[in-house]
Amino acid sequence: MALIVHKYGGTSMGSTERIRNVAKRVAKWARAGHQMVVVPSAMSGETNRLLGLAKELQPAQATPAMLRELDMIACTGEQVSVGLLALALQAEGMPAVSYNGWQVPIQTDSAYTKARIQSIDDVRVKADLDAGKVVIITGFQGIDGDGHVTTLGRGGSDTSAVAVAAALKAHECLIYTDVDGVYTTDPRVVPEARRLNTVSFEEMLEMASLGSKVLQIRSVEFAGKYRVPLRVLSSFTPWDINIEEEARSGTLITFEEDEKMEQAVVSGIAFNRDEAKVTVLGVPDKPGIAYQILGPVADANIDVDVIIQNVSHDGKTDFSFTVHRNDHARVLDLLRNTVAPSVGAAVVEGDARICKVSIVGIGMKSHVGVAAKMFRTLSDEGINIQMISTSEIKTSVVIDEKYMELAVRSLHRAFDLDQASGPA
Amino acid sequence: MALIVHKYGGTSMGSTERIRNVAKRVAKWARAGHQMVVVPSAMSGETNRLLGLAKELQPAQATPAMLRELDMIACTGEQVSVGLLALALQAEGMPAVSYNGWQVPIQTDSAYTKARIQSIDDVRVKADLDAGKVVIITGFQGIDGDGHVTTLGRGGSDTSAVAVAAALKAHECLIYTDVDGVYTTDPRVVPEARRLNTVSFEEMLEMASLGSKVLQIRSVEFAGKYRVPLRVLSSFTPWDINIEEEARSGTLITFEEDEKMEQAVVSGIAFNRDEAKVTVLGVPDKPGIAYQILGPVADANIDVDVIIQNVSHDGKTDFSFTVHRNDHARVLDLLRNTVAPSVGAAVVEGDARICKVSIVGIGMKSHVGVAAKMFRTLSDEGINIQMISTSEIKTSVVIDEKYMELAVRSLHRAFDLDQASGPA
Repeated sequence: MALIVHKYGGTSMGSTERIRNVAKRVAKWARAGHQMVVVPSAMSGETNRLLGLAKELQPAQATPAMLRELDMIACTGEQVSVGLLALALQAEGMPAVSYNGWQVPIQTDSAYTKARIQSIDDVRVKADLDAGKVVIITGFQGIDGDGHVTTLGRGGSDTSAVAVAAALKAHECLIYTDVDGVYTTDPRVVPEARRLNTVSFEEMLEMASLGSKVLQIRSVEFAGKYRVPLRVLSSFTPWDINIEEEARSGTLITFEEDEKMEQAVVSGIAFNRDEAKVTVLGVPDKPGIAYQILGPVADANIDVDVIIQNVSHDGKTDFSFTVHRNDHARVLDLLRNTVAPSVGAAVVEGDARICKVSIVGIGMKSHVGVAAKMFRTLSDEGINIQMISTSEIKTSVVIDEKYMELAVRSLHRAFDLDQASGPA
Repeated sequence: MALIVHKYGGTSMGSTERIRNVAKRVAKWARAGHQMVVVPSAMSGETNRLLGLAKELQPAQATPAMLRELDMIACTGEQVSVGLLALALQAEGMPAVSYNGWQVPIQTDSAYTKARIQSIDDVRVKADLDAGKVVIITGFQGIDGDGHVTTLGRGGSDTSAVAVAAALKAHECLIYTDVDGVYTTDPRVVPEARRLNTVSFEEMLEMASLGSKVLQIRSVEFAGKYRVPLRVLSSFTPWDINIEEEARSGTLITFEEDEKMEQAVVSGIAFNRDEAKVTVLGVPDKPGIAYQILGPVADANIDVDVIIQNVSHDGKTDFSFTVHRNDHARVLDLLRNTVAPSVGAAVVEGDARICKVSIVGIGMKSHVGVAAKMFRTLSDEGINIQMISTSEIKTSVVIDEKYMELAVRSLHRAFDLDQASGPA
């Protein structure tokens, strides 16, 4: 007897047959006495199809006026989904009503294609819930202060669901997806990877930021900020499984650091190939040089991840950092044509054949030697570490991408994540 | 240098290539100094695709809650169109902005799937026009008083365009379509059919109501009510034809009855096979019988077109009327199971193998013998007339559908519509 938010991804909404299954599952929860709010994504492939049409018509670099139109186009996928799901629920005999973001409304800023939610009005939704209806709200969409449609960016439906759950003070937000929870690492790389029953909010935040695709990072941030209990679970279990069993399945992202978690030094291994490295060689080593290099990069709206400045030789140093692969060509241009001449650097090199591998664990806060064990494990496998970056609960290394699988498997084993007695 | 509204149908918006052509045409008009508002339909096939998905999920008879969701789903086709067209115009270097019906807003009543426009706010659109932007507004869509999305029904984009033109007091509303104007009759049936340069509003209203598919009848009514000059023209002419030539092409629906039109007794021949006939035989001939039969039919929301009551014999009469073919089975059920027993009728017969052929002309007001000439022409061809219905400017007959083409061709010839010296 609680207010529950369900979020379904594009795969779960991928056909009328699957939408019917979602409806049956939601109806089961509603019949068990819960007030239900559902946030579905667009049917899989739909957003790409729409943006493909847009790209055909306007391949140029995006201006705000163009991004506004992209949002008008892209958000229709979610609108179709909510209407179809409402119909499917009605066909199950369950009263249901769908809303666009602008109808709730979900207020955002005006940053088209990557807007941020500012507030959500709960009046309309609460009234419908109290009237016994399932309320279906578009993911991904919002409306800005001037009445323009906005979208939250890729994966934004996760964020919508968590934000709606926060605004409605939901008991739990269940993210139904095509995996059955959060794993110690990607099972496609390490078959021994195990599902975690719980994971702390901080660990999940690191894993999401490190490229684990289970949840969009902003949704995890939102859940953290508003302390929304979040559960990742599979949409591929039969819709009619026992509801108590379903409510316990998947991975719960928690805010209480219980004993069990404290025992696990490392909870998971994250990795990605999304980044590329640039190195500015022969930079005069003087104060302010990092800002002189990275300032123009930030001005060009390019995010920088790992940064290293080498020890200086003869008053010169080398400066390396990683950016998203999509920005690699742009950042190389910028450095070669503008930055390097102005700072007096000799050469700018790029390398896209890198990957980042990270160990994540809230137990690292209270255990020493965890990073050292990671470095030794990689060394034993003959893997050279190019860059290192650390936080309280994670250590990341940049290595040659050809060693990625080897590194992940060795670390998974070294930190006992293969063992059933591990952290799960 | 005027405010012009362009409306493009689904075929004209059917691919990115065609949308690009629409953008080039609109940009040409804008560059000639006009303030441009464009109302496009959904890409052809899109609305049917969306409603097909909906039907798979909820095949049941529609309730208001279901119709509300159908509108949520169906209206996305237009939203995609306006966004794509705005991008295409921007790619042409022409500032453009798109709006959904709810953003203008276009206020309607709450009759989902067949809403009627109540008012259109011109503030936002005027501001954008004054800022030099092309404004693109979704056809088909509106918003009701409670903030729910509504649609205007099939062909509703014509109505949207005319309503927008009326609200903005546009100089002219140009309906671009896949035919190049209004013809004396369907050229597929009569190859000698000719395009009319002008047609009066009343004639167009009759032709639209008689099944000519060129314009949706509600758009013609709207144009009449607000005296919006309306032009039907081809979207298949090259986009770069001379703008003066384009502005004179197609068929203008006028409100001034000029001399030329007065000379044309009959402007066109309309016909359709959309109706079916029902006959209630052996009805006691007493006052109120028509209401007793047609009252329940109206209550069942079935539109009746042509009605005939025969001369009475021995206190009994026969009563015939036509309905849309889609309603034929329903109306036969209703008459046989409910109405006939209660009025004491003997037999109910149905006939779907009929068609309606009509001659339309504003000159009929002032000419006698036009109907007689129609009947003689059909008689000469051996075609039996089953029912007759007349108005000031049209005469319709119901005949066996197998004679439809023959009837249309003979009438076209009899009223000199084949002649270049005719009404065009």
